[in-house]
Amino acid sequence: MIELADIEAAALRLKGKVRRTPMMRADQLLEVPSDAELWLKLENLQVTGSFKARGATNRLLTTPAESLNRGIVTASGGNHGVAVARAAHLAKVPATIFLPEGVSPLKRAKLEAWGAQVQTVGMVWDEANEASLRFAAEKGAMHFHPFAEPAIVAGQGTVALEVLSEKSDIDTFLIAIGGGGLIAGMATAIKAIRPNARIIGIEPVGSPTLEASRRAGEVVRLPAITTRVPTMACGRTDPRIFEIVQRHVDEIVLLEDEEMAAAANWLWLELGIAADLSGAAAAAALRTGKVKLRASERVCVLICGAGNDAVT
Amino acid sequence: MIELADIEAAALRLKGKVRRTPMMRADQLLEVPSDAELWLKLENLQVTGSFKARGATNRLLTTPAESLNRGIVTASGGNHGVAVARAAHLAKVPATIFLPEGVSPLKRAKLEAWGAQVQTVGMVWDEANEASLRFAAEKGAMHFHPFAEPAIVAGQGTVALEVLSEKSDIDTFLIAIGGGGLIAGMATAIKAIRPNARIIGIEPVGSPTLEASRRAGEVVRLPAITTRVPTMACGRTDPRIFEIVQRHVDEIVLLEDEEMAAAANWLWLELGIAADLSGAAAAAALRTGKVKLRASERVCVLICGAGNDAVT
Repeated sequence: MIELADIEAAALRLKGKVRRTPMMRADQLLEVPSDAELWLKLENLQVTGSFKARGATNRLLTTPAESLNRGIVTASGGNHGVAVARAAHLAKVPATIFLPEGVSPLKRAKLEAWGAQVQTVGMVWDEANEASLRFAAEKGAMHFHPFAEPAIVAGQGTVALEVLSEKSDIDTFLIAIGGGGLIAGMATAIKAIRPNARIIGIEPVGSPTLEASRRAGEVVRLPAITTRVPTMACGRTDPRIFEIVQRHVDEIVLLEDEEMAAAANWLWLELGIAADLSGAAAAAALRTGKVKLRASERVCVLICGAGNDAVT
Repeated sequence: MIELADIEAAALRLKGKVRRTPMMRADQLLEVPSDAELWLKLENLQVTGSFKARGATNRLLTTPAESLNRGIVTASGGNHGVAVARAAHLAKVPATIFLPEGVSPLKRAKLEAWGAQVQTVGMVWDEANEASLRFAAEKGAMHFHPFAEPAIVAGQGTVALEVLSEKSDIDTFLIAIGGGGLIAGMATAIKAIRPNARIIGIEPVGSPTLEASRRAGEVVRLPAITTRVPTMACGRTDPRIFEIVQRHVDEIVLLEDEEMAAAANWLWLELGIAADLSGAAAAAALRTGKVKLRASERVCVLICGAGNDAVT
């Protein structure tokens, strides 16, 4: 699907279009989840509030301007929608974002701030997505998929280049999985630069999309999604993403929603970080002890998105 | 009161006892408050949620262990109380924190997490403080003042050393003022290392402690405090702090509480930062245009504390 060169090209393209987010050592803790050396990569401070700005902006910058004249459309109740709204703002074209019912007021406020037209259709993402595809066909708007496009995956992969440029000796990466675009992009970069690094993906017990596909040996559609973490809910991944995950991801850990909520609370009280539940997933994998770490190990904990789940 | 050498000694002492917080370029904004180059110093991510951990820990580490046997006491409805509770936790001695009524549940939760005994006395800080001084006299506990002690001021000053070690060419610093300990410590370091840097202090219209003293040419007690920002409310500063501010601070800007609340909202929606109102004060000084900046100027905006004022 993509190679390191695609991610390096994306990083050049994104320079001055997204933020370089900080890394911070997580030390001086009251509740110490591990003896390992913990480094947080703060993508919750990224423009729009998540890493999704990287993929959406790279998709924008690799699309000919003339095919954007009729605007951009996507379906997302979460961070991808805000990232697409902001990409359209950069391109000065209209954005239409289809949302299922029940999207948080915070996300809605951000969509409106970036000037997107918001349309609410259906109860789940699939229904909103069908509406967005119809809209694209009828109006000639460009559809941006949340994860199953090479330019999106390459954009998300730039997170790994930043981490390794700042801290080249990271041994283990903890990365949340929704559709798998982020982990596929990051894993492609990490294994090319530092082949012995360990990559651990995290999925909700109520949406084990990649884990179920690994067990089956092929991409499967989940019979049901029961997680209440919208940014990690995905019924079926893309075969090209599955192939990358099969090759490069060492382990997938499954977490209860409550474990992510508890980690979001810990991030807020101990570190002043306001993460959404997927943003807290990597920290949750640590805190539950479901990931085994050596005392000397250097670990990158990816805080992938901002949210007020624990802060209110 | 203190010199650069005291702050450098504090920085050595604090190594491995507080966090080195990240700096981040504030770019890719929807609402751009200035053409200057903006750098945020994220003390909201400091242990306990604010820079106060630096001063309280330096105070702890410069106090003979035998005089801490009967514990530590202070009065604070804000960030200093949590920082003292954590200092006592490090020293394995009891902490008693006197609070006025109406302290936020977040601060209370943090005090309890760090193991402090919490006592609620009076409606305003002065009443809680009197009770804390009586407690110190009766029980032999060590009293930690929130700002009027050299070790506290030197500890807060270490923020400036970190900023300048990361970005040595900062032209202007925007720093919130409560009692003045932070700005006095930082200004001492900044003017010793980079004498031409400009230092701008920020006070609430409803608690212009330093501004009123500057106008009078001496320390005055404010007749009334009307701000609702507890971490910036102070009726009277310390004469030694006033002397440093007179010598080193170039300008003091006064802000309405609402301007700080709007800035907290902007930090949250645009940058994923959950600041308290004092944490948003420096950003508010920018957004209101009350600070004049050149386009080429490099500005350090100090985000001094975490909070959920805008996030809920």
